[in-house]
Amino acid sequence: MKTDSGMVNAFVEGETELDATTADMIRRRSELLGPAYRLFYERPLHLVRGEGVWLYDPEGEAYLDAYNNVTSIGHCRPEVVDAIADQAATLATNTRYIHEAILEYAERLLATMPDEIGHMMFTCTGSDANDLAVRIAQSYTGGTGIVVTETAYHGITQSVSEFSPSLGENVDLGPHVRTVPAPDSYRMGDGMAQGFGDAVAAAFADLKRHGIKPALFICDGIFASDGVFDGPAGFLAQAVAATHAAGALYIADEVQSGFGRTGDAMWGFQRHDVRPDIVTMGKPMGNGYPVAGVAVRPDVIEEFGRKARYFNTFGGNAVAVRAAAAVLDVIQKEDLVENARKVGIYMRERMRGLQTEFPRIGDVRGAGLFIGVEMVADLETKTPDAALATAIVNGLREEKVLISGCAKAANVLKIRPPLVFTRDNADHFLAALERVLERTLK
Amino acid sequence: MKTDSGMVNAFVEGETELDATTADMIRRRSELLGPAYRLFYERPLHLVRGEGVWLYDPEGEAYLDAYNNVTSIGHCRPEVVDAIADQAATLATNTRYIHEAILEYAERLLATMPDEIGHMMFTCTGSDANDLAVRIAQSYTGGTGIVVTETAYHGITQSVSEFSPSLGENVDLGPHVRTVPAPDSYRMGDGMAQGFGDAVAAAFADLKRHGIKPALFICDGIFASDGVFDGPAGFLAQAVAATHAAGALYIADEVQSGFGRTGDAMWGFQRHDVRPDIVTMGKPMGNGYPVAGVAVRPDVIEEFGRKARYFNTFGGNAVAVRAAAAVLDVIQKEDLVENARKVGIYMRERMRGLQTEFPRIGDVRGAGLFIGVEMVADLETKTPDAALATAIVNGLREEKVLISGCAKAANVLKIRPPLVFTRDNADHFLAALERVLERTLK
Repeated sequence: MKTDSGMVNAFVEGETELDATTADMIRRRSELLGPAYRLFYERPLHLVRGEGVWLYDPEGEAYLDAYNNVTSIGHCRPEVVDAIADQAATLATNTRYIHEAILEYAERLLATMPDEIGHMMFTCTGSDANDLAVRIAQSYTGGTGIVVTETAYHGITQSVSEFSPSLGENVDLGPHVRTVPAPDSYRMGDGMAQGFGDAVAAAFADLKRHGIKPALFICDGIFASDGVFDGPAGFLAQAVAATHAAGALYIADEVQSGFGRTGDAMWGFQRHDVRPDIVTMGKPMGNGYPVAGVAVRPDVIEEFGRKARYFNTFGGNAVAVRAAAAVLDVIQKEDLVENARKVGIYMRERMRGLQTEFPRIGDVRGAGLFIGVEMVADLETKTPDAALATAIVNGLREEKVLISGCAKAANVLKIRPPLVFTRDNADHFLAALERVLERTLK
Repeated sequence: MKTDSGMVNAFVEGETELDATTADMIRRRSELLGPAYRLFYERPLHLVRGEGVWLYDPEGEAYLDAYNNVTSIGHCRPEVVDAIADQAATLATNTRYIHEAILEYAERLLATMPDEIGHMMFTCTGSDANDLAVRIAQSYTGGTGIVVTETAYHGITQSVSEFSPSLGENVDLGPHVRTVPAPDSYRMGDGMAQGFGDAVAAAFADLKRHGIKPALFICDGIFASDGVFDGPAGFLAQAVAATHAAGALYIADEVQSGFGRTGDAMWGFQRHDVRPDIVTMGKPMGNGYPVAGVAVRPDVIEEFGRKARYFNTFGGNAVAVRAAAAVLDVIQKEDLVENARKVGIYMRERMRGLQTEFPRIGDVRGAGLFIGVEMVADLETKTPDAALATAIVNGLREEKVLISGCAKAANVLKIRPPLVFTRDNADHFLAALERVLERTLK
């Protein structure tokens, strides 16, 4: 897939002819927002409205959203809008005052975690959550060393960007960071779990050899930017054991894989039956309202909490936790975890059914409604085909269906519809995909 | 003032007798949120509602808010609530799609800045904004060295906490960080401007002597946590000149002093007629909605933007910028900068009038509605009196008037009412303050 300074599916100015209105807005964007912002697609989208699984442009054209994992219970859900509006009109202060809502929500959320995870802390973004988690882990272990996968994304603060290799080669990794190959179930054989665990152990050994004390291994529950690697369920156990053996903590980054996305459980790590020391979360937590969090074992936070304390002006404010509680209500009442599981299985089965006709679909994988489809030049060599993935992502955009791409080689379709995606929505998606494959490959 | 691991005005468990309900909620807080959270006051406040300058507890008792600088146009302003509710019900995506609202708001905000500040970027919190600003400045200068004042607070990410000494001695400053004494107008004489500039120059020289290339000097426009030092207007010029002479950038942290707070101008640095290279902002920007930003000179961001790019999932989403635009509307329509100037002058004059009767009010200072009142044991020696400041802050809380404290010696009353504070509100505040001073000092 086309990349711009490491970003998959980035619009590159000058490469596509655009209508005058879009071109003008992009020019204004560059002037006002500067050179650091990127847009999606060869023909960027101007969106003005969202509802459920649909997004609309100014002409009222509807786009099926099979990508945005923030609005995971559907765009503009009235339950969340009402909670936000009600609380914003009532009180929005901060955690230096006592408020009931944060306690109720923390209690409900902790109930979804393993028993030993006892405390819940609140930030605004997943980046902040990972930034805080690392501060806690480094304080607890007395080490700094971090192990991540080689195309991981964990966030955008200075500290977190140093262990987010997917930001591209222009953003330096820290000297205390080591990367391991992603657990590529498409190319690695039965030894993947052991191999991945061995790689993590070797990375920690290398840190120690350089005098850098291990602090943590962090991965997301679905290896999202690495290319969506879901399994087999349980394969993480050796890596977590290697982490603990090195004296480091295992941080489960659930910013993308959390809140039911993977279909098998509320949290991505639960698919693997492993026990994180810290769990971070964000994106879908407030269905678009900026709220994120860190769940942690009490003994891990004890000294840091007492000595360093933590305050985040907006983190855990009453509006944020009311929005988050409304999201949790919907996930639980509508059993969206089960919906993600069922619709995800259906979509993957149907796409696997396309592999015979379109053998350049190398692999279809994922869990729940986090799906990766790997495009290759050749089934035998499994050579990644980024250009083909680009063509499909942009072809779908012309079909008014939204997805994007990922992976080191930028050749994996990243499909992450809202958890309320129905089988009808899936059929709509699959029909569009088939048309695009026909046009592109025949 | 009482401190807990460096936090001024922190509640310390076990030191005060509390009613059963409050004690129970605090116990639940500790259990659920863990040891890193702090509450204000010897008797923490449970708040359930806010309106304008008033906050309410569950019994309906009203507290005059002379402290919260986030809700600076008043708690629960309908204009902001409506903008949030309307946009949350319409669309909340991200900056990878084109949207008009972010462009309109960026244009309006940049119009309030010096001409050479050309681009506006969006984050969720002031911490994120400073974190990004430092990444940009370090990329631009090729250096890492940072100079701050000795009790500065700039935020809570790992990178920013390393140059936020007010977080207390348990949070290490980075090896690339140097501190200079705050510009203490109460103790330094006419030479303060030159002395402060010389200190910044010396700090940069010391960084260079250690082989650390200078990157930036950052200060907020009112030296908030240092003890509120406002003037004389213009005194920052030498420090900024020393910064530029060292090849470093000057970052104006307007998270607290921005959006009219200082009364003389929209931005705190404008009081000093200096030219920042980067301006950061946050807290009151969305009147409680998590939105913050970085304004920057185009040449400073050019290479970083092109190579490293920047994406923040929630930063600059349509709800955030609609909320922020509604806040800017109110500030401009109601001329709240001028109100802050006038009411601030009135409050300071009246408090200076109390100094004869209460000579332990050592100094009354500030700009606009950011006011510091320094409590001393003795007018001659100017010895800080933290216990007295603690008694006044908690005495006012019992009078149902909310302020807090700051400064290295924790002896300065920090008074920051909403910008909509009227002269009547000021009189209410002053009467309560007088009663507390009477009770405490006579």
